[in-house]
Amino acid sequence: MSILEIGGVPVDRIAEKCGTPVYVFDEAKIEKQLADYKRYFVSDMFDTDIVYASKAFTCRAMIQKLVEAGACIDVVSGGELFIAEQGGMPMENVYFHGNNKTGEELEQALDAGVGTIVLDNLTECGILADLAEHKRKRINAMLRINPGVEAHTHEYIMTGGSNSKFGISINEKDAIAELVKRAGESEYVDFKGFHSHIGSQIFEDTAFMKATEVLISFYAEMEREYGISCSWLSLGGGFGIRYTDADKPMSVEDMCRSLIGKCEDVLKKEGVSMEKIMIEPGRSIAGEAGYTLYTVGYQKTAGDRHYIFVDGGMGDNIRPALYQAEYDADIANRMGEEKEEEYYVAGKYCESGDILIKQIMLPKKIEKGDLLVIYSTGAYGYSMASCYNGIGRAPVVFAKDGKARTVLKRETYRDLVRLETDEEVNI
Amino acid sequence: MSILEIGGVPVDRIAEKCGTPVYVFDEAKIEKQLADYKRYFVSDMFDTDIVYASKAFTCRAMIQKLVEAGACIDVVSGGELFIAEQGGMPMENVYFHGNNKTGEELEQALDAGVGTIVLDNLTECGILADLAEHKRKRINAMLRINPGVEAHTHEYIMTGGSNSKFGISINEKDAIAELVKRAGESEYVDFKGFHSHIGSQIFEDTAFMKATEVLISFYAEMEREYGISCSWLSLGGGFGIRYTDADKPMSVEDMCRSLIGKCEDVLKKEGVSMEKIMIEPGRSIAGEAGYTLYTVGYQKTAGDRHYIFVDGGMGDNIRPALYQAEYDADIANRMGEEKEEEYYVAGKYCESGDILIKQIMLPKKIEKGDLLVIYSTGAYGYSMASCYNGIGRAPVVFAKDGKARTVLKRETYRDLVRLETDEEVNI
Repeated sequence: MSILEIGGVPVDRIAEKCGTPVYVFDEAKIEKQLADYKRYFVSDMFDTDIVYASKAFTCRAMIQKLVEAGACIDVVSGGELFIAEQGGMPMENVYFHGNNKTGEELEQALDAGVGTIVLDNLTECGILADLAEHKRKRINAMLRINPGVEAHTHEYIMTGGSNSKFGISINEKDAIAELVKRAGESEYVDFKGFHSHIGSQIFEDTAFMKATEVLISFYAEMEREYGISCSWLSLGGGFGIRYTDADKPMSVEDMCRSLIGKCEDVLKKEGVSMEKIMIEPGRSIAGEAGYTLYTVGYQKTAGDRHYIFVDGGMGDNIRPALYQAEYDADIANRMGEEKEEEYYVAGKYCESGDILIKQIMLPKKIEKGDLLVIYSTGAYGYSMASCYNGIGRAPVVFAKDGKARTVLKRETYRDLVRLETDEEVNI
Repeated sequence: MSILEIGGVPVDRIAEKCGTPVYVFDEAKIEKQLADYKRYFVSDMFDTDIVYASKAFTCRAMIQKLVEAGACIDVVSGGELFIAEQGGMPMENVYFHGNNKTGEELEQALDAGVGTIVLDNLTECGILADLAEHKRKRINAMLRINPGVEAHTHEYIMTGGSNSKFGISINEKDAIAELVKRAGESEYVDFKGFHSHIGSQIFEDTAFMKATEVLISFYAEMEREYGISCSWLSLGGGFGIRYTDADKPMSVEDMCRSLIGKCEDVLKKEGVSMEKIMIEPGRSIAGEAGYTLYTVGYQKTAGDRHYIFVDGGMGDNIRPALYQAEYDADIANRMGEEKEEEYYVAGKYCESGDILIKQIMLPKKIEKGDLLVIYSTGAYGYSMASCYNGIGRAPVVFAKDGKARTVLKRETYRDLVRLETDEEVNI
C-alpha cells in the first residue's frame, strides 16, 4: 500500500493543504508532450507550428508553459484571447477560431495584434476586411474548410458534403475562391491558406493521412483552376489520449512522423510547395497530465450496484454525463492494493446522472476519507466546469520536482455571490 | 411584425442595455406559480409546505420572491445554503438534501440553524446526531427513500428495488427502522418522516398518485410493524413544464388538487394521520418564467441544414447537448411574421454538438443583428452555466410591470482570471 505521487508530490499532502476536489497537473507531462510535438513535427520542406487548442485547458500558468516551449495558441473567443494575453503569449502566435465570432471579438483581435484569424465563412471575411482597413491593422487569415473526411476512433468515412456548423465544404470551390478573392482585395488581410479539423479522440493516423491527401490535392486544384496559391495549411487537432485501457493512441512521435511523411509525399506528388503546416493538439497536451483528486464520503449498496460517493462530480467533470466518457481511477492512498471489488463512483450532485465511473475494480476496503484519483482529466475538465448545485469550482495545482503551486484558487461561497446585484435597467 | 415583451419590457431594449446573451425572467410568472402552489396545495387534514428546489435557479432576487410568497427552500450544498442565507430565507424553512453531504456542510447547516436535514443513509444519520449533540443544536431530520415508483413522462413503472444513488429502498424496512431508532436516541435530532423523489419533467399525476399510495401505506406499515410513527411526508418534485408544443403538463391547480385529494383519501383509508406534507417544485416555478435572448450572427447552409448562429450556446444552456432537450424559439423582433423556413439554431462554441435547437420553423428573412429568444430556459440554464470556451456567464434580468433590473451581472474578461494565482503549496 502506497500513496500516489504526482510530479514527485504525494497526493495526500496536496489534499490536506488544498482540500478536495482538486485538479492536479503533472507539469513534466505537459512539458514532455509539448517537447515531443516540437521535436517530431518538423520537416526540411516546410516550417511548422504547434498550435495548442486552449479550450482544452487554459490559464496563465498553462500559457507560460506554451510560451516556454515555443508553441502557438488557438483561441475561440475574446475571453480565451484575453487569458492568452494575460499569460504572456506573443500575439503573433495566436490563431483565432470560431464559427460565430462577434464584431467586438474581431475588433479585439485586431487591436491586440493577433497573428491569424481562422475565418468560418464569406460574410466574416468581408467584416474582417472592413474592420482591418478601418483600423489599418494587418492580419493573416485562413479559412476553415471541410475536407469530407470524418475521423472515427480507428477509421474514417468520406462524406459527400458536410452538414457541420463549421467552415465551408471543400466541394464549394467557387465560394471558396470568392472568399480568397475578397480577402485579396484588402491590403490589410493576408490570406494564408486553409484549416481543417476532422474529429476528436482519434487513435490512428489513417484519417489524418486521408485528410492530408485530400487537402493538398485541393490546394493543387485551387492553384490550377483558380490561380490561387496558398502557403499555409492547418491539419487541426483531434489526437487521441488514453482515458482507460481500451484507448490505445499512437505516440506523439509516431503520429508526427507519419503526418510529416505524408505531407512531404503528397506535396512532392502534387508538385505544390508549402511555407508552413500546423497541427492543433489540445487534449493530447493537457489531458493525461491532469488528475482529479476526490475524498471518498459515504458508500452504499443499491440493487446490484456498490456506490462510493466522492465530494465532486458532474460540476467538475461533465464528460461522463455529456459524452458517456469513460475514465480510470485508483484509491490514491492504497496504490498497489489488489482490486477485488466492482464499484460505481458517483458524485455529490443532485442528479441521478451524476455518476463519474460505471463499474470499476478497486480495492475491497475503501474507507470514508480515502482519496480517489481519476486520471486524464486535464482536458475539458476545468474548462467545462460549472457552479451547478452551488458548488464552487475546484482549484488547480501544478506539481513538479516534488513541489506544488496553486495556479487557480478554489471558488468560495463568497465568489458564488460576487455577480449578485440589484441595478435598475434604464429602459 | 412586433417585438416580444417580457414583464411589459420590449426585449430589444433589454438587449440594447444589457447586451446578449441575457437571461430574462418574467417576475409575474414566478409569482403566479408560487401563488398557485401556495393556494392549491392545501388541506384541512394536514399542513403543507411548498419547498422550492433551488438547484433549478437560485440567487438573492429569487430567494426574495420565495420569502415573499411564504415558500420554503431545498438546498443541496453549503453553497446553495449560503445563497439562501444571503437572500434572507428564514433558516427554519430550509431543507438540506444530498447523497453525499460533507461533514463541513452538516456543521454549516447546524450552525446556520437549518430547519431540516434530509438524510441519505444510516451513516449520515450517525454523523448528524454526533455533530448535533456536540454542538447542542436541535435539528429536524427526514430520510430519502425510494418507493419503487419511477415516473416517466406519461406513465410510471414499479421497480422491485432501486439502484439509484439516492436514499434507501422502501423494501429495506429493517435498515430504515434502525436509522429512525438511531435518530431517536439523540435528543437533538427530531426525526420527522420520509422524502421521496420519483423523477423529472412528469406531465401526469398517475405516477404521483401511485407513489403517494405506496408511501402512505409504507407509513402505516412502519407504524404497525416497528412502532415508528412519523409526522411529515415529502412527495418531492418533478412537475413537468412546457418546453415545446409536444409538452402538455397539468396545471399547477389540477396537479395540486389531485395530489391533495389522493393524500387525504389514502390517509383515511390507512387510518394514518400526518402533520405536514411537502412538495418540491423547482423547474415548474423557474422554468417557464425564464427566457434567453441571443443576437443572431452568421447564417450558413451546410448540406441539408440551414444554420443560424447565435452569440451563446452550450455554455449558457447545456441541456440540449446533455439531455437532448428540446426548446421553442422565436425571432423576438419579428413576432407574428409567418414561419416559412426550417433552421438549425447553433451556438458559437467550438463543438459540433453545440446546437441549441434542431429543426425549428422561423421567419424566412432573418438578418444579422436580429434577436432570437429561446423559451423556458429559467430552470437549469443559469444554474448549469459554465465559462467554457472562455465565455463568461450571461447576466440575469428580472422584468415586471414595464421595468427591468439586473440581478446577476455579466461575467467579464477580468472575472475570468480572478481565480488565477501562483502560490506555493507548503507540502
